[in-house]
Formats: sequence, C-alpha cells, structure tokens
Amino acid sequence: MPSLEHAAADPQFMARALELARKGIYSTHPNPRVGCVIVADGKIVGEGWHARAGEPHAEVHALRQAGAKARGATAYVTLEPCSHHGRTPPCAEALVDAGVARVVAAMQDPNPQVAGRGLLRLMQAGITVQSGVLEAEARALNAGFIKRMEKGLPFVRVKLAMSLDGRTAMASGESQWITGPAARAAVQRLRAQASVVLTGADTVLADAARLTVRPDELGLNAELTALAMTRPPLRVLVDGRLRVPLSTPFYQAGAALVATCAAASARDRFLEEGHTLLAIPGSNGHVDLRKLLTELASQGANEVLVEAGPRLAGAFARLGLVDEYQLFVAAKFLGSSARPLLDMPLARMAEATPLKITEMRAVGDDWRIIAVPDTAR
Amino acid sequence: MPSLEHAAADPQFMARALELARKGIYSTHPNPRVGCVIVADGKIVGEGWHARAGEPHAEVHALRQAGAKARGATAYVTLEPCSHHGRTPPCAEALVDAGVARVVAAMQDPNPQVAGRGLLRLMQAGITVQSGVLEAEARALNAGFIKRMEKGLPFVRVKLAMSLDGRTAMASGESQWITGPAARAAVQRLRAQASVVLTGADTVLADAARLTVRPDELGLNAELTALAMTRPPLRVLVDGRLRVPLSTPFYQAGAALVATCAAASARDRFLEEGHTLLAIPGSNGHVDLRKLLTELASQGANEVLVEAGPRLAGAFARLGLVDEYQLFVAAKFLGSSARPLLDMPLARMAEATPLKITEMRAVGDDWRIIAVPDTAR
Repeated sequence: MPSLEHAAADPQFMARALELARKGIYSTHPNPRVGCVIVADGKIVGEGWHARAGEPHAEVHALRQAGAKARGATAYVTLEPCSHHGRTPPCAEALVDAGVARVVAAMQDPNPQVAGRGLLRLMQAGITVQSGVLEAEARALNAGFIKRMEKGLPFVRVKLAMSLDGRTAMASGESQWITGPAARAAVQRLRAQASVVLTGADTVLADAARLTVRPDELGLNAELTALAMTRPPLRVLVDGRLRVPLSTPFYQAGAALVATCAAASARDRFLEEGHTLLAIPGSNGHVDLRKLLTELASQGANEVLVEAGPRLAGAFARLGLVDEYQLFVAAKFLGSSARPLLDMPLARMAEATPLKITEMRAVGDDWRIIAVPDTAR
Repeated sequence: MPSLEHAAADPQFMARALELARKGIYSTHPNPRVGCVIVADGKIVGEGWHARAGEPHAEVHALRQAGAKARGATAYVTLEPCSHHGRTPPCAEALVDAGVARVVAAMQDPNPQVAGRGLLRLMQAGITVQSGVLEAEARALNAGFIKRMEKGLPFVRVKLAMSLDGRTAMASGESQWITGPAARAAVQRLRAQASVVLTGADTVLADAARLTVRPDELGLNAELTALAMTRPPLRVLVDGRLRVPLSTPFYQAGAALVATCAAASARDRFLEEGHTLLAIPGSNGHVDLRKLLTELASQGANEVLVEAGPRLAGAFARLGLVDEYQLFVAAKFLGSSARPLLDMPLARMAEATPLKITEMRAVGDDWRIIAVPDTAR
C-alpha cells in the first residue's frame, strides 16, 4: 500500500529538487533546468537533475537511484513530467512504471499546447498529483525557456557596466577595466548560462570584444566548469551593414552568427570561415531586433545576454524588449563628458522607463544592481 | 572600596552610551553628540545624553540619575569628558566629585589642543581611565565635529537624486518627483542633522527650492521632531553674482546666509530682510568654496549638507571637498539627453574619482547609495 508523504514537507523537498535543477544552469540549453527528488517514508531515496539535451531527464536519474524504493514513494519534480517521446522516452511513463504513489510538480509545462498532459497521464494511472509548490522559484530558474514557450521570444538580459554616475566610457572611448575581477567573473557566468551572447558592431570594433566564455575566469568548481564548456553560448553579432571584418578577434574566436540587413550574397564568404549569416530585414541598415529575437527563439534560444554599447542596448530598451538589466557599478565618477549608459534620448519624464530594482549587492569592489521593467507602474 | 567592572562588558555598555548619544543627532550643534552610562555592580544606574548647546552635558544627566550609586561605579562616555569651563562646568570635575572609580571613553577629545586633558585630570584624582572602546563608531557619530576640530573644515555630505542611469533631470529641467516619499523623508533627516544646508543659485531659481526642514516629513517620533525643530540648520545660498531675488521662496522661508563675491555694498538690503551676506572672494563670479567652508567651520558648522545642481555639486567634487556622497536612486532610466549627475568633464579614466561604496539599501521604492572618497586607491 503506498505511503503518502505529508504535504507539510513538500516545500522542503521541492527546494532540494530546485537546488539539483540549478546544477544544469550552464548546460541544459535548449532544454529547461529540471531537478527531481524521490521521497519514501520521509527520506530522500533518489535524486536527479537534467544535465544536457539528449541525456536522461531528471526523473530518470532519480528513479534509477531510488530503484525498488520508488514504489509507493513521492516524486518531486521542478517541472511537469513530459508525456511525449522526444530524444528520450516520456518521464510520465517512467514514473508510472516505477509505481510512485504521488507526484508533486513545481509548475506545469509552460507550452500551452502540452501543459497538463503529463500530470493527466499520471492521474489516469491512479497517481495522486499536485502542482504549484515553489512555483515562483521554479519559474525564475527557467524564465527563458518559459518565455520562449509562452511568447515565442527569448528572455533578454542586458548587462551594462557603468560608473556610479551612469557612464560607461570616457568620451575618447577609453573604457577598459571599469569593473574589477569579481564583477568580470559574474559576467562570465552570465554568458555561460545564456543560450546566446549578443553584441553589436560598435563594441566588437572599439573594444576588440570576443564575448567568449573562459573556463579559468568562471570561478566555478571543476564539474560545473566542465559542463559549461561543453555547451558554450552562441555568439551573435548584430551588424546591419557588415562593417566588422572577418579578421577581428570576435570572428577569430570561433564560429559565430551575424545578423545583418546586408544582401544574402555575402553569405558564402562567412560560411567559408565557419560562421553563419542570418539575413533579417531592417531599416536604415538597422536590423529589426524583434524579428531577430523571434528567429533566435525559433532556433531554441531561451536566454539572450546583450553585451553591447549604448546604441544597441538603448535600442533594445526603447523597443521594450528587455526583461532584465544587470548593472555592474564601479565605485567611481567618470564625469559629465563621459559616454552615457543607454543611447535613449527622452524629452519628458513621463517617457522614462519605470523599473523595479530587485537586488543590489557587493561584487568584489564593485556592486551589482538587478532591475526589471515595472509593469505595475 | 570601589568595585571595578569587568572590562569584557565594556563594549556592551559603550554601545548603550552611543545609542543615547545618537538621540542628540538633530540638536547638539555646534557641540558633539555625547552619551554617558554609569554602571555599578554590572547594572546601569544612570544614563544621560547631551541634547542642546548650553544645556547639561551627558555626564551630568547620568550622574544625577545615578545619585549615590555613582560612588565606586564605572562611567562610560562616548567622548573624553571636558576639563574646561565652558557654558557648563567641566565634566571631569563632576565625575571626580561623584567618586566614580573608573572612566571608559570611546575616544579622546578631537581638538589636539585639549586632547587627553580630561582623562589626565581624572587619572590625577586616582580614577582608572581607559580610552578607545568602540572608537570607530564614536568617530562616525561626530565626523563633522571631529573634522572641524582637526582640520578647521566641516564634514561635507553631498546629496544627489538620480535615475538608475545617473541623470538628475530632463534636458528641459523637468525634475520633480524623481524619488518617492521615503527617500524625501530620508533627505529631510539629513537636513535636520546638518549644521548647514547649502545650495546654489541654479537650484533655487529653477526648482523654487526652500531647503527647509518640515516636521511632518521627518518621519521621527515627537521627542526627536521637537528637538530637531528647535535647532534648524542654517540655510546657505552660494550666489556669486547675487542673481537670486529676495522675493524667491528660499529667502521668504526664513533667515538665510548668502555667500557671494558681489560687492559688500549689497549687504544692507539683505540685512533689512533678516538675512546675512557673507563676502567671499572668488574668480569669475564663482565663490571660493574652500574659503566658504573654512568660514562656516569658524562659525561652528560641523556638517554641511550640499543639495545643489550638477554645477555646484560638481565644483565641490572637482575640488576634492566632499567627504560623503548620498545618492538617492530612482528605479527608472531618464535617457541619454537628460541632465548629468555632476558637471565634471574628465578626459581620461585616470582622472576619475575613486570611491568606496559603503552602503546600498532600499528606501521605499528607491535606493540609497552611500559612497566615500577612497583614499586607499
């Protein structure tokens, strides 16, 4: 007879499942990060998390570890178990086959086309099913995957480094070393967790930026570093007029995708060097950024990290395409002739973007501010 | 026989004395904030704090409360007891007369001319004396008084309100309501604790600023509000060319001091309206700010709060006269054509002012950043 776990302990076991899911933050793209815990008689008997697309899902790992103890147990999963045959068999079936008595999910599948199907399959097999435990935390962990499923767009995070008076570089362009090593490591981790790191021609030309993930700068343990390096983010350059030569460090650092409004006739030249050219319509030589994001989402991009200068970052901001700003603030004043944070001329206060600051904390000698558009205001 | 308290409890009793001293934060000008605790047999038998210049010092209040229990007790004072006859008799004598056995001071008198004399007087009377318990906290509480005593200059705190991208107002000058009510109350308290609130002609003309302390906006309890209102800060206007007419709200709000390089012949006109005109040399119609600060210090100003526009605040910054920045940050972007935080054109990164951010915390919907010049870098 199956022993049902007491629901009061649900958040605690789900928190552990989320902790496991987080291990996949650098590697599950384009899949979501998912963790699973199997609990029998109040004790954890199996744990699992999804590491990489094509490899077993979290539930499979946890069930394997639990073995016969899964019979009559409760399974905690951070996302509704899948019910379809993808690259791996459906996890709902695996849970049924293992004989679990109860399944607690943090959230339903965000894809409106399949949401609820996995839970339904479990219920039909006589399993007690619940959803919504630590749902906000689960949604935050997969904000990109969820947005892609629900809206057909990736989650766009804009990283900016600025002085305390909101400047990014001197008027001359001098900008190296605004922030210190701890802030740079934090940016490396933001890159590593993104599906796409996106930049513009200005940045690549002015700063010789490569936008790569460098294992020794991640500040992660060996396991996570290795996982991160097996799945580097796609580097995307927005270069409407193809101003950036193929000899720049950005292109030399590895295969990249360039989004342009220039004629597709240039494509072969990029293909020969191992790069991909994506022709996106635009106006005045400026790529239509919404179309570009839609295209990236259709290729599986969950999270896009924008690391660009004030013009391109300002364009994303003006178009309302930004989901989160991460501002790395150096404790210095660069003065009033230095370059602005965002090239976004506004005439009236009422046009100002209302934001909600969700975090301010020290990162080495610098500070990190996380702000999101405040839709309530 | 006097019973000596155990030194292990010293920080705890000194912390209480500092807590008492803090009650005088809005009212002791030009005196320092001082608290005192008398401890006998491990128990507090008397407490006192200095409320207003001319009224009894902290030690006197505490000794009165302790009465006969002061004999053989330990006295904790946040500042070395005075040894000179001022508006009140010397506290060192009062402690000797009361028969205390031990005196613990957080710090010596910051005036190099008299430092140590109070402690010496106590030692000569056979009292055990110690100094330096919670000294950093005690110095922070009286940073202005200490700077005036040691350097002949006041502690200069610059308050700025800005958007997340470091802007203070739209290009048009539109600037009302950048920050919310909680931030405005915090600014009111900064004004109330200052000896001087200083502003410039631009701010007074453009924003009709009055720079007054308003009791209902302080957000303090009745006792502290009453204390604050008995000792409002001196409002100082820097107006090199006397551009601001006497009919503006700033002058109409009460007696003020105007610092100018204009001819002293204008003095009578201001005197008639109850204001004071201070002639300070300058160049190009700009008041010499260091000379002004020296003059204010000689008049007893411990803390000067600068609430000015980018030009005047930028001038203080450029001259290295700022001890602390308090930035109130509204969670919005005002864009790249909005007005800068500080009018301080720098050409090279090396000229940038290195700062140390000591605090970032939420104030209502806004955030407060406290930064100080980083002399270590």
